[in-house]
Formats: sequence, C-alpha cells, structure tokens
Amino acid sequence: MFLTRTEYDRGVNTFSPEGRLFQVEYAIEAIKLGSTAIGLKTKEGVVLAVEKRITSPLLEPSSVEKIMEIDEHIGCAMSGLIADARTLVEHARVETQNHRFSYGEPMTVESTTQALCDLALRFGEGDEESMSRPFGVSLLIAGHDENGPSLYYTDPSGTFWQCNAKAIGSGSEGADSSLQEQYNKEITLQEAETIALSILKQVMEEKVTPNNVDIAKVAPTYQLYTPAEVEAVINRL
Amino acid sequence: MFLTRTEYDRGVNTFSPEGRLFQVEYAIEAIKLGSTAIGLKTKEGVVLAVEKRITSPLLEPSSVEKIMEIDEHIGCAMSGLIADARTLVEHARVETQNHRFSYGEPMTVESTTQALCDLALRFGEGDEESMSRPFGVSLLIAGHDENGPSLYYTDPSGTFWQCNAKAIGSGSEGADSSLQEQYNKEITLQEAETIALSILKQVMEEKVTPNNVDIAKVAPTYQLYTPAEVEAVINRL
Amino acid sequence: MFLTRTEYDRGVNTFSPEGRLFQVEYAIEAIKLGSTAIGLKTKEGVVLAVEKRITSPLLEPSSVEKIMEIDEHIGCAMSGLIADARTLVEHARVETQNHRFSYGEPMTVESTTQALCDLALRFGEGDEESMSRPFGVSLLIAGHDENGPSLYYTDPSGTFWQCNAKAIGSGSEGADSSLQEQYNKEITLQEAETIALSILKQVMEEKVTPNNVDIAKVAPTYQLYTPAEVEAVINRL
Amino acid sequence: MFLTRTEYDRGVNTFSPEGRLFQVEYAIEAIKLGSTAIGLKTKEGVVLAVEKRITSPLLEPSSVEKIMEIDEHIGCAMSGLIADARTLVEHARVETQNHRFSYGEPMTVESTTQALCDLALRFGEGDEESMSRPFGVSLLIAGHDENGPSLYYTDPSGTFWQCNAKAIGSGSEGADSSLQEQYNKEITLQEAETIALSILKQVMEEKVTPNNVDIAKVAPTYQLYTPAEVEAVINRL
Amino acid sequence: MFLTRTEYDRGVNTFSPEGRLFQVEYAIEAIKLGSTAIGLKTKEGVVLAVEKRITSPLLEPSSVEKIMEIDEHIGCAMSGLIADARTLVEHARVETQNHRFSYGEPMTVESTTQALCDLALRFGEGDEESMSRPFGVSLLIAGHDENGPSLYYTDPSGTFWQCNAKAIGSGSEGADSSLQEQYNKEITLQEAETIALSILKQVMEEKVTPNNVDIAKVAPTYQLYTPAEVEAVINRL
Amino acid sequence: MFLTRTEYDRGVNTFSPEGRLFQVEYAIEAIKLGSTAIGLKTKEGVVLAVEKRITSPLLEPSSVEKIMEIDEHIGCAMSGLIADARTLVEHARVETQNHRFSYGEPMTVESTTQALCDLALRFGEGDEESMSRPFGVSLLIAGHDENGPSLYYTDPSGTFWQCNAKAIGSGSEGADSSLQEQYNKEITLQEAETIALSILKQVMEEKVTPNNVDIAKVAPTYQLYTPAEVEAVINRL
Amino acid sequence: MFLTRTEYDRGVNTFSPEGRLFQVEYAIEAIKLGSTAIGLKTKEGVVLAVEKRITSPLLEPSSVEKIMEIDEHIGCAMSGLIADARTLVEHARVETQNHRFSYGEPMTVESTTQALCDLALRFGEGDEESMSRPFGVSLLIAGHDENGPSLYYTDPSGTFWQCNAKAIGSGSEGADSSLQEQYNKEITLQEAETIALSILKQVMEEKVTPNNVDIAKVAPTYQLYTPAEVEAVINRL
Repeated sequence: MFLTRTEYDRGVNTFSPEGRLFQVEYAIEAIKLGSTAIGLKTKEGVVLAVEKRITSPLLEPSSVEKIMEIDEHIGCAMSGLIADARTLVEHARVETQNHRFSYGEPMTVESTTQALCDLALRFGEGDEESMSRPFGVSLLIAGHDENGPSLYYTDPSGTFWQCNAKAIGSGSEGADSSLQEQYNKEITLQEAETIALSILKQVMEEKVTPNNVDIAKVAPTYQLYTPAEVEAVINRL
Repeated sequence: MFLTRTEYDRGVNTFSPEGRLFQVEYAIEAIKLGSTAIGLKTKEGVVLAVEKRITSPLLEPSSVEKIMEIDEHIGCAMSGLIADARTLVEHARVETQNHRFSYGEPMTVESTTQALCDLALRFGEGDEESMSRPFGVSLLIAGHDENGPSLYYTDPSGTFWQCNAKAIGSGSEGADSSLQEQYNKEITLQEAETIALSILKQVMEEKVTPNNVDIAKVAPTYQLYTPAEVEAVINRL
Repeated sequence: MFLTRTEYDRGVNTFSPEGRLFQVEYAIEAIKLGSTAIGLKTKEGVVLAVEKRITSPLLEPSSVEKIMEIDEHIGCAMSGLIADARTLVEHARVETQNHRFSYGEPMTVESTTQALCDLALRFGEGDEESMSRPFGVSLLIAGHDENGPSLYYTDPSGTFWQCNAKAIGSGSEGADSSLQEQYNKEITLQEAETIALSILKQVMEEKVTPNNVDIAKVAPTYQLYTPAEVEAVINRL
Repeated sequence: MFLTRTEYDRGVNTFSPEGRLFQVEYAIEAIKLGSTAIGLKTKEGVVLAVEKRITSPLLEPSSVEKIMEIDEHIGCAMSGLIADARTLVEHARVETQNHRFSYGEPMTVESTTQALCDLALRFGEGDEESMSRPFGVSLLIAGHDENGPSLYYTDPSGTFWQCNAKAIGSGSEGADSSLQEQYNKEITLQEAETIALSILKQVMEEKVTPNNVDIAKVAPTYQLYTPAEVEAVINRL
Repeated sequence: MFLTRTEYDRGVNTFSPEGRLFQVEYAIEAIKLGSTAIGLKTKEGVVLAVEKRITSPLLEPSSVEKIMEIDEHIGCAMSGLIADARTLVEHARVETQNHRFSYGEPMTVESTTQALCDLALRFGEGDEESMSRPFGVSLLIAGHDENGPSLYYTDPSGTFWQCNAKAIGSGSEGADSSLQEQYNKEITLQEAETIALSILKQVMEEKVTPNNVDIAKVAPTYQLYTPAEVEAVINRL
Repeated sequence: MFLTRTEYDRGVNTFSPEGRLFQVEYAIEAIKLGSTAIGLKTKEGVVLAVEKRITSPLLEPSSVEKIMEIDEHIGCAMSGLIADARTLVEHARVETQNHRFSYGEPMTVESTTQALCDLALRFGEGDEESMSRPFGVSLLIAGHDENGPSLYYTDPSGTFWQCNAKAIGSGSEGADSSLQEQYNKEITLQEAETIALSILKQVMEEKVTPNNVDIAKVAPTYQLYTPAEVEAVINRL
Repeated sequence: MFLTRTEYDRGVNTFSPEGRLFQVEYAIEAIKLGSTAIGLKTKEGVVLAVEKRITSPLLEPSSVEKIMEIDEHIGCAMSGLIADARTLVEHARVETQNHRFSYGEPMTVESTTQALCDLALRFGEGDEESMSRPFGVSLLIAGHDENGPSLYYTDPSGTFWQCNAKAIGSGSEGADSSLQEQYNKEITLQEAETIALSILKQVMEEKVTPNNVDIAKVAPTYQLYTPAEVEAVINRL
C-alpha cells in the first residue's frame, strides 16, 4: 500500500485515486511533530500560549519566537516549521499594512486569515510568492476588530475555521480534550490564561517556566507577556 | 489493473487508453467524502440546504460556511475541499462585480456558472489563475435573473447542468432518490425548505439542529437563514 | 503490448514507434462513449440531430445543450466531453465575430472549421489558448455561406472533412451504415429530418421524445427546433 | 531491444546511443501509412498526382485536399497527417505573401522549401510556432521561378532534396522503382501526367476515378485539374 | 527503507509521508562534513573562531576564508560548502549596503539574518536569486547593533536562532558540550577567545597554529585577527 | 552496463559518473554514419572535397549540397544531419553579415568558427536560438583572412581545432591515415585537389563522378567547382 | 550501491543523502581525464605550463589553446572540456573589460576569479548565462595586481583557493607531490619555468617539445612563450 502512495507524492499537488492530496497530509504530519500551542477566546479578548522547546541552554529563549504580532490588533501562535511560519506572517504583515494605507482602517481578522490561506493554497504553482510545497505550519490567529474578539485556526491545506478554543502541535489531541472540558464562553481573560497554562503543563515533559512558555493576548491590542507576567500566571496554577 | 492506472495520474491532465481523465475522476472522489448539500428550484425561488460537520464543540458553527453569496442574486452551496470552493467563489464574485461595472446590469446565472467552469476546466495549464490540479469541489449554484429562478450543478470536470433539484456530497445518492420521489415543479418555497431538511435529516447521522445545517434562498435575492429561521423549518418536519 | 503503450502516453504529444499519436487515439475513445449525433446536408440546408442523455428526471432537458449556435449561419452538434466542446464553440464564436467586425461579412464555414481545428491541433504546447491534452470531442459543423449549405466533421486530431452526411458518438457505426443506405443528395430538408430521427431512434435505447433529442437546421440561418417542432418530426416517423 | 528504444522516445528530440533521432523515425513511419503522392518535373512544368482515400461514400471527395496551392507559382502534394500538413502550408503561405509584400517579387521555390523545413526542424523547443513533436508529414513541393520548374521533397527531419521525380506515402517504394524506369528529362507534361496516373493505378487497390485521385500542375502557375481534366488523363491510360 | 527515501529526494522541496523535507536534511549532512566553527557572545562583543583545513602546503592559508565581514558591525563564520556561503554573504552585503543607503543607518543583526534566511528558504522555486537546491552551509552571525552584541545561528532550512554560544561543523557535538560546561554570560572577551580556541584544539586532529585557525571579533566593529594576534591567544592556552 | 547508460541520456546535458556527456557522444555517432568530407590547407588556399550520396537517380545531384558558402572568404564542408548543418551555416551567415555591417570588414575565420561553436555548446538550454539536443553535425571550415588560409574542424561538443588537413564522416579513419602519409605543408592547391579526390575514391564504394563528389576552394574567395572542373580533377587521378 | 547513486544524478543540482552533489563530482571526473596543467607563483610573477595533446600530426599545435589571456594582467591554464573553458574565459574577459570601463582601473585577480566562480556555481538554474550542467573544467588563474602576483585554482563546484603552486588534470596527483618537494617561495621565475616543465615531462608519456607544451607567465603582464622560448626552457632541463 505504501509503495503505491509514493506514486502520488511527486506530483506535488495532485489527487490520489481516493481523492486525497498527499503532500498536504504529509505537511500536516510535520505539524504533529511541532511544539504545542493553545488559543482561547473570551469576551475580553483572546489568549495565546505556546510551549518553547529550548534544545540547548546556550540558546536565547526570547529568540525562539512562536507567538508573533501581525498587526496591532492581530497576533498568531504557530506550530510546525518556523521558517515557513515567518514567511506567512511576513506576508500577512504586508497585507495588513497595505490595507491600512489604502483604506485608512485596520484589516478585519477574517480577511487577514483569508489572505494567509490564499497564499497557502496556491503551493506548487510556480508564481512568485507561492512555495513549491505546502507550508508546513498551522496557525492560531487571535484578533480583535469591529466584530469583537475572534480566534481562527488554519492548516496547510489553506482551510480555516473560527474557534472558541483550539490546540495545535504534538500535544493537541490531549489538549483539545481538556479544552472541551474546561472551556465555556463566559470565562474571564484571567481564567483563560490559567486554563491555557495548566493544559500546556500537562502536555509538556518538563517543568513550566517563563523560559519555556510564551503567552500573549489581544485585548483589544496585541501584547506579549513579560517573563514576570508569565511567572505570575504560573504562580496561579 | 490498479498499477496501470497510476501511469496516467501523474500527467495531470491526460487521457487514459479508455478515454478517461483520471485526475478529474479522483477529484470527484474527494467530493464523495464531503458533506451533503441539496438544492431545489420552485417558481418562487431556489432553496439551498447543507449539512455542516462540526468536528469539535469549540468550533464556531457560523464560521463553517458551506453556503456563500456570489452576488445579490446568486448564491451557492458546496461539497468537497472548502479552500478550493472559496477560490472559485472569489473568482465568481470578481466576475459578477466586473460585469455590473462594465454593463450596468447583473450577470446572468448561466454566464456566472460558465465563468466558474472555464476556470475549473483549465487546471494543469500553468497560467496565473488556474490551479495545478482539478478543483476538488462541486457546487450547487442558485440564482434569479431575467429568466426567473434557476439552479445549476457543476462538477470538477468543468461541466455544468441546469436542474430542478439536486444533491451533492457523501449522501447524494440517497438524497437524489428521495428528491425524485418528493419533488415536483409546483411545490412552494416553503415546501422546498421542508423537503430539503427532511432529506438532510435522513442522510445525517446526528440530530438536525440550527448548529449543524445551513439554509439559504434566492427569492429573488440571496438570503442566509438565521438560526431562528432554521429552527422554524426544523419544527415543521 | 499494453505496457509498452503506456510509455508513449505520458509524452502528451509524441509519436509511438509505429507512427501513432496515442493521446489523440485515446481522446477518440472518449468520443466513442459519447451520445450519438447525426448531420445531413440537403440542397435546402443542413439538419443536425442529437441524442440527449437525461440521467435524472430532475435535470432540465433544455440545459443539456448538445447543439449550439456558432454564428447566425453556422451551428454544430457535438459528442464527447461537453466542457471541451463549449471551449471550442466559444473560440469559434469569437473568431466569427472578429471576422464580421474586421471584414464586414460572415466568415466562411470552412474557415471557421479550420480555426477550430488549429486550436485542437496545438494541444500540449503550453501557450495560452491551447489545452494541455487533446480536446475530447468531435463536432458536426453545419453552415451556409456563399457556396451554399455545407457539413463538416472534425475529430480530436484537428483534422476535418466535408461530408454529405455523418454520424458521431457511441452509435455512429450503425448510424453511418443506415445513412449510406438512406441518404442521397436529392432528399428534401423534411426527408432529412425524418431520416435523422429514425436513425437516432434505432441507436437509442429508450423511446424518442422531445425531451431526449434535439434537432436544429441551418437553412440558411441557424435555428434550434422547439419541443413542438421536434414532436412534429417524431409524429412523422 | 525494443524496450531500450522506449528510453529515448520520451526525450522528444534526443539522440540514441547509435546517433539516431527516434521521434523523427517514428514520424516517418506515420508517413508510410499515408496515401501515395507522385511528382514529376518536365521542361514545361511540374505535375503532382495523389491518391485520395474516400473512406465513406458520404464524404465530399473535393474536401479531401491532398494537393494545395502555396503561392500562384508553388503547389504541394502531401502524405501523412493532414492537419500537420495544413499547418505547414499555412506557414508557407504567410512566408510567401510576406516576401511578395516586402520585396515586390515572388519567393523562390528553394527559399519557400527552406522556410518550411526550418519550422519542421525546430519541434520540441517550446517557442510559439513550433510543434511539440515532429510534423508527421512529407511534402512534394512543385514550383516555377526564375530558374524554371523545380520539384522538392521534404521529410519530417526538416531535410529537403531537389528531385526530377519522386513518390511518397504507402506505395512509394514500388512507385519510385516505376519512376526510375519510365522517367527521363525529355518527357512532355502530358507524358508526365500519364506516367503519374499509371503508376498511381498500380499502387492503388481500387479503380482510378476522378473521385479518388487529384492532379495538379505548376506550368508556370499552379492549377488543380477539374474532374473532367482528370477523366481525360484517365482515358489516355 | 532507504529505497523509499529516494522517492522523495527528487522533488527538491517536497514533504515525505512523515512530514520531513529530505533535501534539507541532506544539506545538513553536508555541514556535518565541514570544518568546525565556534561563536561566543560576551558583554564586550562576540568572538568567532574556525578551523581551517589546509589540504596542501602549497595553499595560501589566508585565502581559505571561513570568517567573512558582512558589514562593519556584522561578521560570520561558516561550515559547509564555501561557494554557497560566499553567495549568501554577498547577498547579505548587498542588503546591508542598500539599507544604509536607503535609511542612513546600519541594518540590525536580526534583519540581516532574516534576509539571509529568506533567500535560503526559497530554494527550488526557479526565481532569479534563489538556488535550485538548499544552500549547503550553516552560519554563525556575530553582530553589534542598538541592542548590543548578538550571535545568530542559521541552518539550511532557513531557520535561525539567537544563541549565547554555538558550535557548527564536524566537531560541533563535542564542542557544544564543552561550551555548555565552560560558558557563562559574564565571561570577558579575552576569556571567550581562550575558550573558543581551547575547544577547537580538542576537536582538531592537528596542532593549532596561526595557519590552521582564524579568529575574529565584533566589538563593536568587525575585526579579523592577524596571525600575531592568533598566536597570542594560542600562547594563552 | 548499457542499461545504466540510459539513465544519463535523458538529462540531455548532464555528466555521467565517469565525467562523460553521453548526448554529445551519441551525436558524434550520428556523424560516423555521414558521408565523408576532406579538407586540406595549402599556401595558396584551402581545398574541400565531399562525397555526395545520391540515393536515387531521380535526385538532382546539385541539390545535395554538402559544401556551402558562409561568406565570400569562408566555406564549409559537412558530415552528419544536413538540416542541422543548414541551421548552423545560416547562423554563421547572419553573424558574418552583421560583422561586415558593424565593422566594415570581414569577420575572421576563427571568430566565425567560435560563433558556430557557441551555438553548438548551448544545446538543451531552452533559449531561442539553441537546439534542445546537440547539433548532429561536424564541419570543416575553410577560410582566408588577414592571417592567410586556415582550416578548422568542429564537433558536436562545440569544440574546434585548427588543422592542416582533416577528414570527417564514415570514412574519416582511413582517410585521416592517408592524409598523414600524403600531406605536407608545401603541396600546391592542385596537388591538394588530387590528394583529396584520390582519398575520397578509396573510401567511396562507387566510381567517382562529377555527380557524386563536390569540390570547393577558398583561394582567397570561396568557389564551388563546376562539374567540368570536377571532371578535370578526376581525370588527373 | 551504484544504482542508488543514479537516483540523484538526474536532479542536476540536488544533494544525496550523504550531503553530496554528484553532478559536481562527475564533472570533477571529467577533469581527471584532461591534460595536465601546472602553475607556480614566484616573487617576480606567475608561471603556467600545460601539456598539449596533439592527437594528429595534421592538427595545428598553436590552435590547441590550453593557456589563454583574460586581461593583460591575468591569464589562465585549463584542464577538462575546452569548449566549457572558452565560455568561462569569454565571460571573464567581458567582466574585466566592463570593470576597466566603469572604474578606469583593472579588476583585481580575486574579483575576476570570484566572477568566474559565480557563473560556475549557478548551473542548472535556467537563467540566461548559466549552463544546464556544471562546467567540466578546472582553471589555474595567474595574475598580478596591486597585491603583487597571485595564483588561484577553481573547480567545477564554483569554489576557489589561492595557492603558491598547483597542478590540475590527469597527472595532477604525481605533479602535486613533486611540487611540494621542489617548490619554495624564494624560487626565481626561471627556476619556476624549469620546475614546471620537468614535472610535466614526468607525467607526459611522450618526449617534451615546443609542439606539445605551452608556457606563459604573468610578470606583471600576460605573455605566452614563443616556440623558441619554450625550446630554451626545455634545453635547461
């Protein structure tokens, strides 16, 4: 069975007899190897939390960026290939800046997400901005616009969904179950911080410290937590 | 037999010795995995109804869009790869807007459908707008123009048919049989709503709720039903 | 033997050791699966008749177009992939309109046929208008110009022939034999209608009705028969 | 041995280890399947004669064109794929018209032949006018210019030779032998007509009639014989 | 297992079923064959030290450049394919010069690193500046800007990390362990020199001399040590 | 061993593990099948002589051109694919005419040869003038410029050598041996004619006549011998 | 093992699992088949000496150019495919002329070498100047600029090294050993000539004569030795 599969992989973007796109499925595998990220939407705003894998004590923890700002009202957490994510984020930053310049107002969170997915969908087509393979990354996009706070989840196929809460990466299966148990729409932003970090703590193999997790919120503007702020959340667990 | 097939798949758009286009057939397989959508034409207008698969309680049901507006007089329901459908719908939106701008009148439903199919037909040709593979999606296009209400059905080969009623997606076989039994040209729009939802109910494995189905009509303008309006239809079953 | 053939298919447009072009031959297979179409030339004009396969009672019979107008003095019947045929017809429509605009007179039927075949011949060449595979369709082109009525037959290789009468599609073999027996150059247009429909009746598996056949004539302008006019011909059988 | 060959065919225009170009050789096979054509040069002018295969009594014999005018002083007979020949002839017509326009005099027969062969040589190179495979056709080019009458023979490799007499197509082997016996430079145009048709008669399986052969001469301008003129030659046999 | 792998390598930039990018992994293998390079960040500035493999006594040691200046405030050490590294460094030099010209101030070290990685990420995409394969080189980028001294490490996937200390090349495993034992953030620049060279000494098979190692610092401007200065550090070991 | 070779041929222009370019070697095989051509340099000028293979008595011997003029001071003899040679010669004619136009003086023989070889070297690169395979032809280029008479020999790899005498084609091995025995730098032009023809006579299987050999000289301008002049040389043998 | 290799060769410029670039390694094999070339740097200037393989006594020895001038202060000796070397040298000549024109001063030897290697590195990338395969040639580049005399060695990977002395080609292994024994930085130019030729004599299979070796020096301008000057060096051996 496996050998037959390989017949379809090499045409980067072609269907298998069962109607599947293998390169997209393989890219999704790349994300299952990535670090865990969690997002929760509250009425006050959206919280993002990520595990940072510090492979060597000589690495600068603050340089392992797994949460990034897109515009002042949008941020995103990522799991998968970091270099791919940086390309997508850079693309989104240009799109949101262009939108502000052309229309004098911020781009909506959904339009920003759609712009990211348009780029992701067109892999293998040889035009200038697209990649020759799928982007090996999933994103949790947190934002706040005229419709209030929102949280989007994108995968390598260029599909996106709006969520109340979502986990991605190697620990996403267990984390999603915990989210379903603990999440409700009425939680406060502070409760969301606590839930996010307590779930990360379960899926991470090491002790949670300000060095190996990052937290950010969009409420209503993007803000990455300082180590002290992260410490404070940890102490609440 | 299977091995020989694989010889033809890799040339994305080539005939097999029996005169078949396998990539198109495989894309049609992708649609058989998709959620069910149903359309019915009445003298008052056209009704579209879709099953929404909410894979997690944390997903925002309203963000799982399987019915979309193309222009104020045209809407469509879809089954298959949602990211592909979004690209086709976006293309159709640009075409209908350009038509309004150039001619000062709405594009006909047939011309809009033809424009969608032109794009779908040209996969694998490397020009800017076309995909490197077939679009893995079928559409039910509902519209209303100078010829009155109309319903079109498109498949990944870029072919389209005008129908009185049609079902697509994983439950389409059973749903089409039920439609042939229950449909006639004289039904009212309200009866069409009821038939659509009662058939969806048969093919869906879970209870029908405003959360897991969407309904829209073009009569004569596009309108997506609110959860309360969906609830009202459900209560009529 | 079969395996060796597959070596040649993938080079879309290359000769086999015996001097054959397999992709063209496979496209011809696609036509053998298509519905039957018949054309007859008379001194009064040309008659086209086609079988329409209505796979579901929910399909709108009038939307299954297998006879199309190219210009007011040219029409064509088709067998094979309908989406391909639409592309060819659209190309021919643009060519004939351009010709009228540039020269102030209609394009001759032969020039129109040649323009269609030029496009069909150039598949696999990567320029903008051509396809990446042969067009999987045969056409019967009926027209009337300064040389009087004429009937042309084209195949996927881009070759064309002028005929007095011709059948294409799945029933073409039997239909061609019947035509040779029943056709002579002196028949009237009305006799041609009767011959066409009586032959279609033989090759179709179901009863002939205004719903499952279409008739058109170019005498000297293109005109598709109404259901009532088709009914009248049926009644003469 | 055969399997090894297939390794070289797919690179459309590459040498085999023995220094051969297989795609060109396969295209030459396509011509061996074609109908027979014969050309003879006399001091008065050049005669071309071809067999026309009328596969059905419903075909219009005059539409099976195997002899075509290029310019008023040049004509050509063809054997092989007719659609390919039409493309070459159309190219030559444009070249000769451009030459007349630019220089106010007719293009020489050799320059016209060279222009045809330049196009034939460049297959597989992806520029706009060239084909993605060799042209599957041989031509006998008859002309009359300042150097008097001349006859050229071209093959799919883009090579050409000047001849006194030459046969191409399925019956060329026997026909060439007969030509060597019967031809000499002093024959009259009328004798050339008789020789051409008597040889065609030998290689054709059916009776020679004005319907299944065509004759043309360039003496000094191109002229296709009417059925009556062909009949007259037949009667001289 | 190995044979299956080879199926994925030839699509230069495609995922394997496990979500891996083999060409990038193979490029990383190329670096494991390279000479060792070490970087250490101190509060005074950054130190880079490299092993130079002088394969022949006839080579000019100073021409084996494994440490290069990018701008006056940025230098880099490399391991892997030197010709690839030169291309990246040349690209970075142009970028930093353009930035100075456009903005009148030096480019930050992170932006310079990002620009290098953007180029590295886009291999296999056929646009003008990118390579058709991954760059087979890792870099240690040392710089000093408004944020003080910094050290970045890049790999062939286009990913980068900020580090306090890092070793690359064939001896990197052992060297990284030694760095973790001996490095702390409070060491002086002179101590960093000593640590770097003592670790290089362990991993090199031959005696350390000013001929087979190079040292540079960015403190705050780039400066390559003279043989005498290298000698002085050696003498401190 | 042979099967392994085929792995390398299809990449038109790639090295084999032994550092060989097979497509070039196969093109050289094509020349070994060609007719024999001989060139000799004397102080008075250069003599070229070729065997013409007249495969049919109906061919016009003068149309089998194997010696061609490039410019009035340069001619060339060829062996291999004639259509390829014509392309190279046409390229050289344009180059020499452009040079005359731009600089008001003839192009040197070496520059002309270099221009031909530049074109030959760049096969398989997809730009407009180059071929998709090596040119299957060798040339003997005879010329006379400010440095006196010169003779160059080119092969399909785009390499050229200056020679005193050289044979190419199927009989080149024996002819080269004879040339080494009979040639010295002091021979007269008339002696060169005699040597060339006596060697051609040895390698040709048929009797030498003005019909099956051609002779030309550049002394100092290009001149093709008339049949009478060839006859005169034959009579001296 | 060998079969697995062939999987990697056809992707012209891709890494193998061990991090190797096979096409570059195979190109290096092409050089091992080439004639031997030697370069030595002295304080007075640089000496280049090459073996010329005169395969036939009819070849003009002076036309077998294996040492070429790039600019008046730079020359190079080559081993491998001569047509490839000519392309590189022509590229370098244009670069050095452009530099003189733009800056009014000669290009440095290192910049010239870098320009050559940039072109060599980019093979397989489809842009206009680069080749579709690696250049199958190594160069010894001798020059004299503001830094005094210098000698560079380049290989097909686009890497270069500065050397005091270096041999390339089929005899390079033995020649390099001899150079290590006999070379020191204090030798005079005359001694360098003697060493170069005595080593060439060892690796050549035939007697050394002015016909089968070439010598050049850059001291400080490029000068190719006359046969008499070569004779004089031979006589000193």
